[in-house]
Amino acid sequence: MTTIEAYFKRDSYAESMGIKLLEFSEGRAKAMLEIAENHLNSAGTVHGGVIFTLADFAFAVAAHSHGTVSAAINSCISFFKAVSAGVLYAEAKEISFHPKLASYTVDVTNEKNELIASFQGMVYRKKDTLNIE
Amino acid sequence: MTTIEAYFKRDSYAESMGIKLLEFSEGRAKAMLEIAENHLNSAGTVHGGVIFTLADFAFAVAAHSHGTVSAAINSCISFFKAVSAGVLYAEAKEISFHPKLASYTVDVTNEKNELIASFQGMVYRKKDTLNIE
Amino acid sequence: MTTIEAYFKRDSYAESMGIKLLEFSEGRAKAMLEIAENHLNSAGTVHGGVIFTLADFAFAVAAHSHGTVSAAINSCISFFKAVSAGVLYAEAKEISFHPKLASYTVDVTNEKNELIASFQGMVYRKKDTLNIE
Amino acid sequence: MTTIEAYFKRDSYAESMGIKLLEFSEGRAKAMLEIAENHLNSAGTVHGGVIFTLADFAFAVAAHSHGTVSAAINSCISFFKAVSAGVLYAEAKEISFHPKLASYTVDVTNEKNELIASFQGMVYRKKDTLNIE
Repeated sequence: MTTIEAYFKRDSYAESMGIKLLEFSEGRAKAMLEIAENHLNSAGTVHGGVIFTLADFAFAVAAHSHGTVSAAINSCISFFKAVSAGVLYAEAKEISFHPKLASYTVDVTNEKNELIASFQGMVYRKKDTLNIE
Repeated sequence: MTTIEAYFKRDSYAESMGIKLLEFSEGRAKAMLEIAENHLNSAGTVHGGVIFTLADFAFAVAAHSHGTVSAAINSCISFFKAVSAGVLYAEAKEISFHPKLASYTVDVTNEKNELIASFQGMVYRKKDTLNIE
Repeated sequence: MTTIEAYFKRDSYAESMGIKLLEFSEGRAKAMLEIAENHLNSAGTVHGGVIFTLADFAFAVAAHSHGTVSAAINSCISFFKAVSAGVLYAEAKEISFHPKLASYTVDVTNEKNELIASFQGMVYRKKDTLNIE
Repeated sequence: MTTIEAYFKRDSYAESMGIKLLEFSEGRAKAMLEIAENHLNSAGTVHGGVIFTLADFAFAVAAHSHGTVSAAINSCISFFKAVSAGVLYAEAKEISFHPKLASYTVDVTNEKNELIASFQGMVYRKKDTLNIE
């Protein structure tokens, strides 16, 4: 297990929700979530907070893929389609990278490859190396 | 229990996370969350997804406060301060209201009334009356 | 000249700024701007308002490309690099299309194809056909 | 004339558009614009780029009000009402202030005090003192 995988294994919230890290490389990451009953809102569709968290997780892995710590400072998300069952994927891609700031877009899709939501996020990059003592 | 309270009681995801609806009126809502271990990320601070979900919940209640159904289409969130224990509050306020679209801002604060995050969201308003047959 | 070109020729503000429509097709549009002195801010770099307007113009053309009228309801823009001379391009691409709402991303690049800004916008689609009596 | 006023007098773009700085203090600023023909879009209403620029200007003054230089990194804007004549005001307020990052909300209103647009922006704060050699 790489340091990044080990680090994100400690993400209690993403873990408890059932989010799985599928793959990652420099500036990229892909995660998935199998939709369960406790992911739904009052309308019986996947909660916006679940979709945001899945996107945010892929975003965070991509941002940490350089081996240093960063903190999310801003995100925008647009929701295009309600879903209530199946699998969701989030694929994050780095679009800008500076010493202090970096930006990512994340596409959230379902198993038919329909775009469910589009996410854009920015992180503040710290100097600390990622480590898991 | 009002129809709105009953409706949001069925929000499995917010319920399972421990979010509580404190109060609401036309165009407004206030919710809270007591921070627990399973709300944390790998850095040991409250997950962005948790903060988003709390804000999104207050936003949704405010948007449904007129008694009709609506769907979130877009949200932006900025994060100002990491927190790892205590209580979070989200207070939503309607800033624009049209037949088809409405907009809300949500302030997320901690128990010292420090601003943790600022959220802005827009909904598409449907014609359906909120009901919980 | 197509109806869309004629319609956007009447965009006084984009015209007065020097924005040029390069090409468009269903759900897509590309525009450009040659940077001039009056596009600069106090720091001597291109004004955020200029970059936003260029992106917004490509976004509007793409949204009108289906031949019906629409109105921008929400936009997010991130700025990655300051520029002070040369040419800027904005390329808009539709990522979601519904009867009432549609969404677009716009990349703003310079002549070296560096990403200057990333824009995401949503429109409310009206029933009116685009026409220029 | 204060340093800040002199600095923003050099904002060629805002100047050429007719934006006026009405007042400012630590973390706050208010600007206005009298709507003219060349501010309109193809629909005959004030261009989104004009509204963005007015908001961005108030945001920039508020961000520079501490006497140091900063650069906008991210903005979200929602549009609530189309206008075609009269006066627009933009009022910026600081909601978060850190050594490296600061955030602002800006309300854009018309002369009837109706909310036309709501803007939220973040800056990266540099160490340089604002000066106008």
